[in-house]
Formats: sequence, structure tokens, C-alpha cells
Amino acid sequence: MTRERLYLFDTTLRDGQQTQGVQFSALEKRQIAENLDALGVDYIEGGWPGANPTDSEFFAAAPKTRATMTAFGMTKRVGRSAENDDVLAAVLDARTPAVCLVGKTHDFHVNTALGCTLEENLESIGASVAHCVAKGREALFDAEHFFDGYKANPDYAVSCLKAAQEAGARWLVLCDTNGGTLPSEVGRIVAEVIAAGIPGDRLGIHCHDDTGNAVANSLAAVEAGCRQIQGTLNGLGERCGNANLTTLIPTLLLKEPFRSAFETGVSEAGLTQLLKISRTLDDILNRVPLRSAPYVGASAFAHKAGLHASAILKDPTTYEHIPPESVGNARVIPMSNQAGQSNLRARLASAGIEVEAKDRRLGRILEIIKEREDQGYAYDGAQASFELLARRELGLLPQFFEVKRYRVTVERRKNKYNEMVSLSEAVVVVKIGERKAMSVSDSMDETGQDHGPVNALSKALAKDLGPYQACIDDMKLVDFKVRITNGGTEAVTRVIIDSEDGQGRRWQTVGVSANIVDASFEALLDAITWKLVRDRQVPE
Amino acid sequence: MTRERLYLFDTTLRDGQQTQGVQFSALEKRQIAENLDALGVDYIEGGWPGANPTDSEFFAAAPKTRATMTAFGMTKRVGRSAENDDVLAAVLDARTPAVCLVGKTHDFHVNTALGCTLEENLESIGASVAHCVAKGREALFDAEHFFDGYKANPDYAVSCLKAAQEAGARWLVLCDTNGGTLPSEVGRIVAEVIAAGIPGDRLGIHCHDDTGNAVANSLAAVEAGCRQIQGTLNGLGERCGNANLTTLIPTLLLKEPFRSAFETGVSEAGLTQLLKISRTLDDILNRVPLRSAPYVGASAFAHKAGLHASAILKDPTTYEHIPPESVGNARVIPMSNQAGQSNLRARLASAGIEVEAKDRRLGRILEIIKEREDQGYAYDGAQASFELLARRELGLLPQFFEVKRYRVTVERRKNKYNEMVSLSEAVVVVKIGERKAMSVSDSMDETGQDHGPVNALSKALAKDLGPYQACIDDMKLVDFKVRITNGGTEAVTRVIIDSEDGQGRRWQTVGVSANIVDASFEALLDAITWKLVRDRQVPE
Repeated sequence: MTRERLYLFDTTLRDGQQTQGVQFSALEKRQIAENLDALGVDYIEGGWPGANPTDSEFFAAAPKTRATMTAFGMTKRVGRSAENDDVLAAVLDARTPAVCLVGKTHDFHVNTALGCTLEENLESIGASVAHCVAKGREALFDAEHFFDGYKANPDYAVSCLKAAQEAGARWLVLCDTNGGTLPSEVGRIVAEVIAAGIPGDRLGIHCHDDTGNAVANSLAAVEAGCRQIQGTLNGLGERCGNANLTTLIPTLLLKEPFRSAFETGVSEAGLTQLLKISRTLDDILNRVPLRSAPYVGASAFAHKAGLHASAILKDPTTYEHIPPESVGNARVIPMSNQAGQSNLRARLASAGIEVEAKDRRLGRILEIIKEREDQGYAYDGAQASFELLARRELGLLPQFFEVKRYRVTVERRKNKYNEMVSLSEAVVVVKIGERKAMSVSDSMDETGQDHGPVNALSKALAKDLGPYQACIDDMKLVDFKVRITNGGTEAVTRVIIDSEDGQGRRWQTVGVSANIVDASFEALLDAITWKLVRDRQVPE
Repeated sequence: MTRERLYLFDTTLRDGQQTQGVQFSALEKRQIAENLDALGVDYIEGGWPGANPTDSEFFAAAPKTRATMTAFGMTKRVGRSAENDDVLAAVLDARTPAVCLVGKTHDFHVNTALGCTLEENLESIGASVAHCVAKGREALFDAEHFFDGYKANPDYAVSCLKAAQEAGARWLVLCDTNGGTLPSEVGRIVAEVIAAGIPGDRLGIHCHDDTGNAVANSLAAVEAGCRQIQGTLNGLGERCGNANLTTLIPTLLLKEPFRSAFETGVSEAGLTQLLKISRTLDDILNRVPLRSAPYVGASAFAHKAGLHASAILKDPTTYEHIPPESVGNARVIPMSNQAGQSNLRARLASAGIEVEAKDRRLGRILEIIKEREDQGYAYDGAQASFELLARRELGLLPQFFEVKRYRVTVERRKNKYNEMVSLSEAVVVVKIGERKAMSVSDSMDETGQDHGPVNALSKALAKDLGPYQACIDDMKLVDFKVRITNGGTEAVTRVIIDSEDGQGRRWQTVGVSANIVDASFEALLDAITWKLVRDRQVPE
């Protein structure tokens, strides 16, 4: 049986950027676009060229993607030609293969917000789309407020779609802009639009989650005939967010009736990357991943109820509707039991440390991890620190050196040109065997720019490690994440550091303290120690 | 037109307690039950008496509620009579007016998990329900895995419902236990169950959010004929959570076709308490409220896009599907680099600053915001810093004081007990008018616990502000968020600080620098300055 093609249109970089508190840099946009491309979406809407410097910068050096890169814009203003509309010109100047233009389809909005006649709006839609097509672009038309518009004036709403269709738009996207439409209404209206003569394989659906139904509305639209779904990773987006592609994609690929009926650009292998891609986005935004997220949440396959957990051990299908590994997730069963220990052994083995199944130290390591997670540590994102913790417990960690003390000073005052400037300085005292070494460093780079106390501390620590110096000289700190979290009843700072070396290895370490400099220092020490373990081939 | 009665069954205290990391005390359960009762739900499932000490303690002194207090349990074990089943006896001992018993309806589970015959299971259901009814209780039957069971063996699944019905159960609740069923399937199966002879006003629906459809599944069941909905506040529950009543209730009360068709126990006045009740639960659990939550989220009525914000000013119904105040929420017009001038004016007005539409300084303020956002600032989450920026540009910001310089030291070394300890110390020099003041502070709290350099700096700065001292004495720092972001091509640190004062006001400020201590200091300064502006009634 041949399956119909269903297209996925991602707008994380455009509508997702409307999320309160979200502001991507051009570099972050590029990284997200590359992940979306690896996942296998069909369209990536990169932003609105000309609307802000970041979006313009992103399009000026957009990554090469298999997915169709799309620029967002709006239909031309009434009273000027498409050729002379500077907003539209900026969108076309981004030179993307596809362009998605939003336009009004609700008579009330045409009158209230645009202040023009219904006819003028139709002309604007048709002329704008035709202009993009004439420039050789694939054109999409986002029909703003389509469902409200259809309920108020169905003939006019459909005539807007037809104006875009006749001008050559590849897709007519039905947008539930204020998120107020419910699933059965979406299904009914999509069916009526198709009955009015617009084929489903030209229709897209764009939903918002204001009633918690963005996913269900998207599914209802597909069941009624739409063949393109718009959404965002992790459901980012204005107000309550857009339809969550991280939720929709596994449903479309794994669950009936969708699995048998449709083909998408996402492969089974791509699907197993879903959790990682979701977490990467949270990392970029420094957001705590939602534990309860469908499919990819840390709790999505956690079985707390005793009855459930014991049934799961007999047969996982009793309480799991899909296999967790199909989306890159894993089952979670309380640490105390057998499953917890076999998970731990697998994780140690992946770090090259083999431990017998009956080794009692496994239980002890699990206890320490639990205690430290209660204090605010997080080992999911810090495999290197986890490995050091286990090595310490297993007696496989030599003491390379000892930090006796350190002192960091941050000073802000006027320089000789009467400008306020900051300078940090760090002193570190280290004992290596019988030798004591004292190092000092400031926080300046070659250009005289200050990089703060952690930078100074890191440089002072790495300045004189005697026999280990050569080994750590090719290390650099490539990322640094800080989060305030709860350690018991106290607010503490958790720092996660990404380090890289000359061989391109990258590893993560964690530190926790009420003092941010201490937390950073702990993570730095772990980073160096892990590198020494690896390069000195400590026996395992 | 008379509306049909739709019943709301809350299981926050039972299924909600299965959320990973959630463990209510008996006192917290009582507080939540009182809030649920004030909201107007019909049933409150308090827990499983006998299953754990907390639930037994809660039922021993359950609050008097208008809602029907319900105890959860399971059908008796095969091979013993209902009268002699100690688990069932403990449930009845709680002396609640209603009892909800879960039982199997999926043939595979009867065989795999129970290990008995299909007939024995039917007997167990009937006898257990009959026993509760004989004891004078309203009986509910939770049909576990009903949808999977129905798909595998529809006759058997329905015969389980009939066994409970014939034994006198008031409600037969169709449970999608593993959360894997999709909305159109739920609608179809509910309709078939009704066609098989079980009236809809005896049917309840219990959904989980494993595909992000728990709300939609519940609505589909009601549209197909079910007249009881089970769910939890804030969507708590095992794995991805249960159907979210905080989302469902406003939809049922405010949105068609439900609004005209049904009556619930929740009044319009009760609905305005929804946000408060949702936040109280988060407070009890010490969770950060989900900003994007439908209806009650802090972002649910936040209009970031410039186009949306300007239309909202003309008519709120353009981008709001319900009035925010109906659920106790409020409209938010945040700043961001997508914002237009009308957005900016609305935001200034909400801070009490009126600016003419044609004032050219509006354009200048937008430019500064864009520049600063490119440097890494974020004003969405820092309204107070935004307001100060605008005031500075509009000439409405006096210079209260000037920080001439500061110095912070962080030291880590061994104390006299040979333990590694950290101590931070800060010196700040401030000029207030012609007077210069120098203050010093360390980072210790009363218990001798170190809180790091930002804490020391904050204390030193607030130690001697002369004429302003009284005004800032009731300020405290209540939250502190750090992220590493890109400012131009450099990695910089962005710090957002939440402050609160004695009047319960809470405000957010932002600082950005490559030096984390500097970034924090900048946000601290803004926090103090904003408080001075507010309390000293600066002319506007």
C-alpha cells in the first residue's frame, strides 16, 4: 500500500522566536536549522528578513539544508504595487527558495486592522503571491485567523485562499492565529474548505496551544485532508506556543491511523535523535526541559506506581504505548531495584569501566548519585563528572594534584581615560607530589578585554601543572552553562562546563555551590582531571 | 434552553501524586482539597486509604467539602470474597460518601497481570462494586486500559462495564491508562459503547497526556456522550500527566459548543480563581509555573509580535480568544526587537509614563533596545530595566547616586578544622551628592554559610545609601537567573534578578557583561534604582 506524503514545516526560528523571553542569535538559529535538517523536516522558516538585524544576519549566511529554507513576510500594503513594497522586497532579497507570506482572511480584521476594503485585500494577496512566483520562489500563503474568519464569513475566507491559489501559491496554510478553535471545529472546517474546491494536498495547518489542543487540532486537520503541518520544536511560540512538532512527529510515525497512511521526511533513525534535538534547544535557551513532555520528557516513561512498575517488568507493553528507545528516550524505574543497577553498569561500560553484576559498590554509587542530585548536581549532562565519581568509588582515580587554596579578585573602577573598566585576577596554589606551585593570572585577552573571574581562575590553574602541563595545554573551555537550582532547601548554583581538546574530544563536567565561583572551579577541576585520566591511560 | 449537567472529577490527590518527584503531606492534601472545593469540582479523589500512611492520615481527618469526597481502591482479589478482602476493607474504612475502584477490562492484562480467567475477573468486578453499594456508598468503576482492551476484545471490555453497571455503579469510567489513544479513536469507541447499551450519563473519561492529547481526548469523549471528566490541576499525574482540568474547565465554561450545551459545578466567579488555585499548587510543590500553560500561564496573554500588539490596542478580540480576566489572568505586552512603537507606548503607559504617539524619542528608545538586545540584553523578562532605560532617554531618571568603584574577593582555603571553606568579601565606594561612602560586607549568613561574591556585593551596596537607606531596607533578592549568551561575537553573561519589597511588589532587572560579577552588579543597581523611582514618586 502506498502512503501519502505529509509535509512538515518548522517555524521554530520564526514563530518560535515569538516566545516570551526567547531571542535567538544568528549563530543559534544556524545550529537549530542544522538540527532540524538532520531530523528531516521539509521546510525551515528561518525568520523575517528585514524585520530585525538577527534575522537579516541569519539569512545572509543561511546554512545549506536539504529542507527548503523559507523566509517569512507579509502581503504587500494596499495602495502600492508588489514591486514597490519595501517590506516585501527585503523578504525576497533573502534569496530563499521558498517564501511564506501572511495575509488577512477574516473580514473583521481587514476592516479593523488593515482599514481597507475586502476587495483591496484580495488584490493584495494575489499580487504579492504572484510577485514571489514571478521571482521564481515557491510561495506559501499563511491565512491569518482563517478559522475565525471562516466562521464569520466563509465565502470571503475561502475567496482569500483562492486568490493565493490562482496566483500560484504552492500551499495555503490555515492558521488558527489566536489558538481558540477546538478540534472538531477544525476538522469540520477543513472538510468544508476541501469541498469548496481547494485540494487537501495544497492545504497546510498552523495551530496554537491556547486551549491545549494545538496537537489535536493539527491531527484533526490531517484526518480531514490537510497535507502540511506547521509547528515548532518543544512547542515554542507566541503565548502558549505553536503545535509541538516534538510531540507530533512520533505520533505521525508510530501511531495508527497515521503510521500506515502517511510518509514524512523523518526516518526511523532520525526519530531516535528526537530527544537529543529537543534537549539541545533547551540548552540553547538555558531552559529546564519539561519532565512531563510527551515522548521526550524525562518522566515520559517513568513508572512510579508500584502496580505499573511490576507489570512493566513482566511485559513493557502493559504500560508503554510505544518503545521509549524509538524516540531516543529510556524507561525509568526507581533506582533501588535491579533495573537501576543494570542501567548503571551499562553507563560505566560505555566509559570503559567493567563492573561485575553483583558488585556491591554499584549500590553505593547509586546512593551517592542520588544524594548529590538532591544537592543540585545533574549527571545527565555531565558524563565526565559521573565517570570520575564512579572511579573514585571504585578506587580507579589517582590524585594527580591537590588545590590548596585560591583567591580571585574582581575590581571595577575608572581607568586613566576616566572610563569604568573591570579587571579580575586569580591566584591558585597547587600541590603536585611534594612540590608546591603558585600561579597568578588576570582575565584579559590579547585585546585587553576582560573575561571575568572564572576565566582568570581557569588560566591561573592551567598555568603550572608541572608534569601534567603538556597534557592540558591543548584543552579549552568551549561552553559554560549556569543555572540556579535547589540543593535541599537552599538555592545553589549549578555550573556545567564543556571542554574540548586538540583531538576534537568534547566532555562535560559539573560543579555545584552557593558560590558561583566555587561551582565553576569544581567543574574546571573535574574537566582537567578527566583529561588526565584519559590521556594517562589509567588502568581500568 | 436547558443545559445538560457535566460532572468534574478531580484526581490531583491520587493520580496527581503519581507524578515523578511529587509527594504531598496530609496537610497539603487538605489545602488542595479546600481549593478544589472552592473552585467547584463535583468529586475529589483524596487518595488510596491503606496504601500509604499519608493517604490514611488525610482520610482520618478529611475536610468537609461540598464536593463528594472519594476514596480510591481496587477490585477484590480473585479467590476471596469482597467481605474478606483487606485491601478493599481499608478503602471502605475511610468512610467517604463515594468509592472509586479500578479493575481490569483488557483481556491481555487479565491473563498477564492478574493471572486469572476472564470470568473470574467479571465476578471480581461485580462483587466488589455490589459490596460498596451495600455499604451505602456511591460506587465508581475505573475501567483500566479500557481503550486498548476494547480494540483487542470489544465484547469482553463492554461486559466488564456491564458487570459494574449491574452491580449498581453510578459511573463507569473509561480509562486510557497508558495514554496512547488518539482523539478520533476515543470519540468512535465512546459512541460504540453507548450504542452497546450503556447510557452516556453513566460514563466517565480518564485520559493521560502521553501523546499530548489528554485534553482533546476528554473533549472528544464528551462530544460522543460521556458526562464525567476526570483530571488533575495543572495536569499532574504519572508519566506525562493526566488530563489538565486547569485547561479543560475554562474551555467547557467559555467555549462553544460546550458553553451552551453543558452546566458544571464551577461558577463564573469560581473560574476567576483558577489562576490563583493553579499557582497555589505550584507553590506547594515548589515548582516554577509553566509560562506557556493555556489560560493561566504568565505568557498566555502576552503579545510579543509587533503586528499583534498594535491590533490588540485597537480591539483585544483580534488576538485573544477569551478575556484574560475571566480566568484571573492579565494581558502582557512585552518588549522585544520585533516590537513596534505602539507596543512600546502601551508598555510605557502600563508603567505610568504617557508619551505622545508622534514623539520621536520613541524611535530612539526602540533603537537602543535593539542595540542592547544585540549585546545580549533581554527586556522581555526585565520590565524594570526596560522602564529605567526609557526614563533615562525621556529625561525622567534622576541620578540618585553613583558607584565610583568596587572590589570583590573570593577566597577558598582550609579553615582551622582543616576543611576547605570559601569566603567572599566586597568593598563598594558610592558617591551620594557630595558625600562619599565606603562599605564592606562578606557573604556569610547567620549560620556561617557562604553565599558567594554577588551576595557580598549586594550587601555592601545596600549597607550605606544615606538618604535612600530606609527606602531599600525592605528589598530582597528572590531569584537570580544566569545564562551565557552571545553579545555580538563574544560570549557574555546575562543575569536577571527578581527583587521583592515589603509591599509584596516584585520586579525584574537585567545586567550583561563578559564578567559575571559585573553583570550581576548591573542588575542589582537597576533593582535599587527602580525601587527608588517608585517610592520617591518621580514626576512622570
